[in-house]
Amino acid sequence: MKSIKVGIIQLSKTSDVADNRRRLGEEIRRMAHTDHPDLIVNQELHDSLYFCQTESTDLCDLAVSLPSETTEFYSRLAAETETVIVTSLFERRAPGLYHNTAVVFEKDGSVAGKYRKMHIPDDPAYYEKFYFTPGDMGFEPINTSVGRLGVLVCWDQWYPEAARLMALRGADILIYPTAIGWESTDPEDEKMRQRDAWMTVQRGHAIANGLPVVTVNRVGHEPDPSGVTGGIQFWGSSFVAGPQGEMLHLSPSDKEDVAVICIDKQRSEWVRRWWPFLRDRRIDAYDGLTSRFLD
Amino acid sequence: MKSIKVGIIQLSKTSDVADNRRRLGEEIRRMAHTDHPDLIVNQELHDSLYFCQTESTDLCDLAVSLPSETTEFYSRLAAETETVIVTSLFERRAPGLYHNTAVVFEKDGSVAGKYRKMHIPDDPAYYEKFYFTPGDMGFEPINTSVGRLGVLVCWDQWYPEAARLMALRGADILIYPTAIGWESTDPEDEKMRQRDAWMTVQRGHAIANGLPVVTVNRVGHEPDPSGVTGGIQFWGSSFVAGPQGEMLHLSPSDKEDVAVICIDKQRSEWVRRWWPFLRDRRIDAYDGLTSRFLD
Repeated sequence: MKSIKVGIIQLSKTSDVADNRRRLGEEIRRMAHTDHPDLIVNQELHDSLYFCQTESTDLCDLAVSLPSETTEFYSRLAAETETVIVTSLFERRAPGLYHNTAVVFEKDGSVAGKYRKMHIPDDPAYYEKFYFTPGDMGFEPINTSVGRLGVLVCWDQWYPEAARLMALRGADILIYPTAIGWESTDPEDEKMRQRDAWMTVQRGHAIANGLPVVTVNRVGHEPDPSGVTGGIQFWGSSFVAGPQGEMLHLSPSDKEDVAVICIDKQRSEWVRRWWPFLRDRRIDAYDGLTSRFLD
Repeated sequence: MKSIKVGIIQLSKTSDVADNRRRLGEEIRRMAHTDHPDLIVNQELHDSLYFCQTESTDLCDLAVSLPSETTEFYSRLAAETETVIVTSLFERRAPGLYHNTAVVFEKDGSVAGKYRKMHIPDDPAYYEKFYFTPGDMGFEPINTSVGRLGVLVCWDQWYPEAARLMALRGADILIYPTAIGWESTDPEDEKMRQRDAWMTVQRGHAIANGLPVVTVNRVGHEPDPSGVTGGIQFWGSSFVAGPQGEMLHLSPSDKEDVAVICIDKQRSEWVRRWWPFLRDRRIDAYDGLTSRFLD
């Protein structure tokens, strides 16, 4: 397989889970019908609003078991459209034990694998430590018919360690479903710095590892039910970058976007020959990376 | 110290080492006189041409012992101008044992510390593995009167591990003397991708670690004495970025540049509170980072 056609689906969401899922299904079918992608990547927690703006035990009702009707839904979609689909679900593992989990469906509808978000944020309006236990499956790429997918989730995107471990375990591509946006009171220049930093650090992972990166974010404003903040203006800007961090696609920041982008897998092969960073890592001197701080 | 005034000196070089050093001394004095920087950062191997374009045992004559007349020269300059100076020298440690070493001088002229380049490239026109033994001092910031300097050198800039280890050891700022440029036969779009990747990956280190980055590159064309390649067109583009990767200064790619940039040290404090990446590192799951590959 010399290239992969990657579909990205950047949507805004409502509190109507059934309708969110129905609309997403329609987009996936339409994209499959017209553009025949090999792989479709969805944004983080695409079935619901970004519910982590407040801490509420009631909202745990949004979580789904694996397997469940929800996974059946995406399984059928993958089989019907014959595409590999990366989903992002609120996983109910046991009473009182939840994860933020990406489930990847093979194009025959089987589950190719899952990744439980390892780095969990906690920030006003992003109270994820309340909901999600940090992942316990490590950083393992998921084998699929379109390649080894280095699926990570949102906050992971700020950690070079996560991307590197996926690369060292043979990932062909880094994938980040995400949900990130602006707080309304931030000044415009701060907003631009934040979005730019978010893209730059992920393009940096592409470069450091000679791998393409696919990041899909949500878009639109979601109010804070508690009224503590002005809510989140999700900044969209889903993007695909090549193994030199070069931008292949950038979605708008203020509206939905559905796009299919062709990634040349041979390019990673060549970029890594030109820039053989993996050759020269000083693994004899990296012990400190497993320390919290070296004071 | 709430801010640091950082001077950067991006120059082109000739084969006349004495003249290179004299010119650099003049620039340092002029800058100190007019702008009073706290810290001056120089490009990689600033005393000579970038001699690694060919493999020649004769060129080892360019190396200097520590201490030597060369370090005396920079020591006097530091004391005279009362600035901390980051130099980049070809270190002769013993017969047949050389390093690519950054020596940092305190503003009283004493040696604050040194860093021996840990990651050594080898690439047509950059035959550094022939000249330089990889550093054996690890990634240790250098304490100075203007802060703890995370001094790294050139090829290190592609490695998130190096930047992270400096951050974990309490660096206040990341500093990269460097010598990188274009091969004349690369097409224009490839040249732009290379320079952009080089900036992006380093801005990524700034972001991932909440630290400012100062990178000083050489500029101008240096022919390949062997005629094997078209020589190197060093792309200048020295830059200073803040802890969100925001560009504070960018030098031209085609001419010399001397500039003084003010870095707000308080900004790192705040950016790290807003984006507390160090809080959430999964050190329990990073063991693989000390492996060559995880197959």
